Amino acid sequence: MLATTIHAPGDIRFEEVPDPVLSRPTDAVVKVVAGCVCGSDLWPYRGENPVRAGATIGHECIGVVEEVGAEVRDFKPGDFVIVPFCHCDNTCAACRGGVQSACDNLGFTTSGQGEYALVNQADGSLVAVEGGAPDPALHAALLTLSDVMPTGWHAAVSARVREGGTAVVVGDGAVGLCGVLAASVMGAETIVAMSRHEPRQEVARAFGATHVVATRGREGAAEVRDILDGVGADAVLECVGTDDAMGTAIAVARPGAMVGFVGVPHGIELPVRRMFERNVGVQGGMAPVRRYLPELLQLVQDGRIDPGRVFDLTLPMADVAEAYRAMDERRAIKVMLSSPS
Amino acid sequence: MLATTIHAPGDIRFEEVPDPVLSRPTDAVVKVVAGCVCGSDLWPYRGENPVRAGATIGHECIGVVEEVGAEVRDFKPGDFVIVPFCHCDNTCAACRGGVQSACDNLGFTTSGQGEYALVNQADGSLVAVEGGAPDPALHAALLTLSDVMPTGWHAAVSARVREGGTAVVVGDGAVGLCGVLAASVMGAETIVAMSRHEPRQEVARAFGATHVVATRGREGAAEVRDILDGVGADAVLECVGTDDAMGTAIAVARPGAMVGFVGVPHGIELPVRRMFERNVGVQGGMAPVRRYLPELLQLVQDGRIDPGRVFDLTLPMADVAEAYRAMDERRAIKVMLSSPS
Repeated sequence: MLATTIHAPGDIRFEEVPDPVLSRPTDAVVKVVAGCVCGSDLWPYRGENPVRAGATIGHECIGVVEEVGAEVRDFKPGDFVIVPFCHCDNTCAACRGGVQSACDNLGFTTSGQGEYALVNQADGSLVAVEGGAPDPALHAALLTLSDVMPTGWHAAVSARVREGGTAVVVGDGAVGLCGVLAASVMGAETIVAMSRHEPRQEVARAFGATHVVATRGREGAAEVRDILDGVGADAVLECVGTDDAMGTAIAVARPGAMVGFVGVPHGIELPVRRMFERNVGVQGGMAPVRRYLPELLQLVQDGRIDPGRVFDLTLPMADVAEAYRAMDERRAIKVMLSSPS
Repeated sequence: MLATTIHAPGDIRFEEVPDPVLSRPTDAVVKVVAGCVCGSDLWPYRGENPVRAGATIGHECIGVVEEVGAEVRDFKPGDFVIVPFCHCDNTCAACRGGVQSACDNLGFTTSGQGEYALVNQADGSLVAVEGGAPDPALHAALLTLSDVMPTGWHAAVSARVREGGTAVVVGDGAVGLCGVLAASVMGAETIVAMSRHEPRQEVARAFGATHVVATRGREGAAEVRDILDGVGADAVLECVGTDDAMGTAIAVARPGAMVGFVGVPHGIELPVRRMFERNVGVQGGMAPVRRYLPELLQLVQDGRIDPGRVFDLTLPMADVAEAYRAMDERRAIKVMLSSPS
């Protein structure tokens, strides 16, 4: 099949690779209808994570079940499905505890920017879109459910966003924007999005941000606290993963608040003394996508949320190298890739 | 007045110092009926915190109001009161948010092991024991309400202990034991106390521990997880403050759990990657004593809890140096000091 590979930082190719094959009876193969580029794909692209030359890349997709293993009971070829980036059995203790991203049988989508993707633990992982192939106008929103929207949602859950409360979102990537949307759905009354980029500010406002702060660092944090009566937020969503972003997140948290963090940590040193002095907590990690999927799918199908707005560029999958460039250079918030076939 | 002072590590004296005086109209002076030694007093005693030679020490006490400032409305001389170790106005945003320990007008008891203690923000801080001087048999339990019991409670609140859940308490000092009691009152079904010391194990069991694990480090953590179906606890109370204790706490947490930490951090480096991989969160800090005091006082007065059991030695206040020695050498869990007058 054709799929996206990375050969070195900056070197993204769309080329022939071996077809995925069912290796366990619980596996399924999904024919990709649409994939996309994740902010975390930019870490290896920028050389900030190691690269295994020639490896496929891409972990977000929606598609149609092509083939299932002998033990897959709930899905059959032809089903239109959302593929969570992290696969889970949805039965182990971690899954039952709501942390499907720490499943005993954890797996990952590895060719979501290709023609086909292998899914481990198909019954536990996949969620079908009922009624057959959905309106293509819904593809963008459905695609966000494989990672970025549940990840923003997880930041809000981890930060304990509550109805009538206040929330700050640090990071204006697609995850941060989805965090704004999540906080809005959860009923936060004041939502401050920290964003310097006009097109992202616009999406943030459309998603429910009541305030936008463009300043960063100490000054930005002070500006945010001013908006929040000088006290800080009840809940803070850290959607970047750097030490600066975490520092800002903790600085804008009111005493007793939680910071929910979902960006893969790169160089974060948690300031335990400062956290202790102000009783500010942190919790986060990979989103348990499967946990949130049914609820989020319903919200999309009911027209209550349109997270697909995070895609401001759609390219044919063959142009994936340009998709990475556009995101790396911040010319695009997030790029959707339509399948070649 | 006579009060306890520290002159150097290991050098505790009971000697004449200036009487406390009302310096602000919101202050009160309390004549101490009983004080005690806190685990955190041992940090300077052991030279692990700096010592200001000749400074008074001791921040836990109960007593009788001696004198109040012009703006104190809710208390009058003769009232029997519990003195939270951290003083608060109980009206600022932090206090309204339930974090009285981050009050805009934060103060601390500094001569709780002396004849008199100054209380800032008397109206916001103090809680009266209704009905005049309580039965001396209740003094021990009431004294715990000035710090150690609300601190154990705060660990349980921060760890999100819930009815029917599982909890692990790391640390068998008086705070850890109060954490066991808190988890029990909150309805945790399985409570594992990590303790190597027989007398402390006994109190832990009396306070509601269903299991005691005496092993420490990696092996201890493995033993705890075995008890908890190999998965780990829903809630972990870290009641020590060292990096080892925090490491153990995170190791025994199930994916998605919270670690509540209340020991003043000494050398803790939070393992952010490990926390991220398992979605284990941390929150904690100084206990907002005033927030929990009314509820805990009621539990004591109703005979539902007897946290006074953490005191296994009572000495006249003049023997305070021996009290420190007994705790430092772990001959006593916690020492109560009865007032000289």
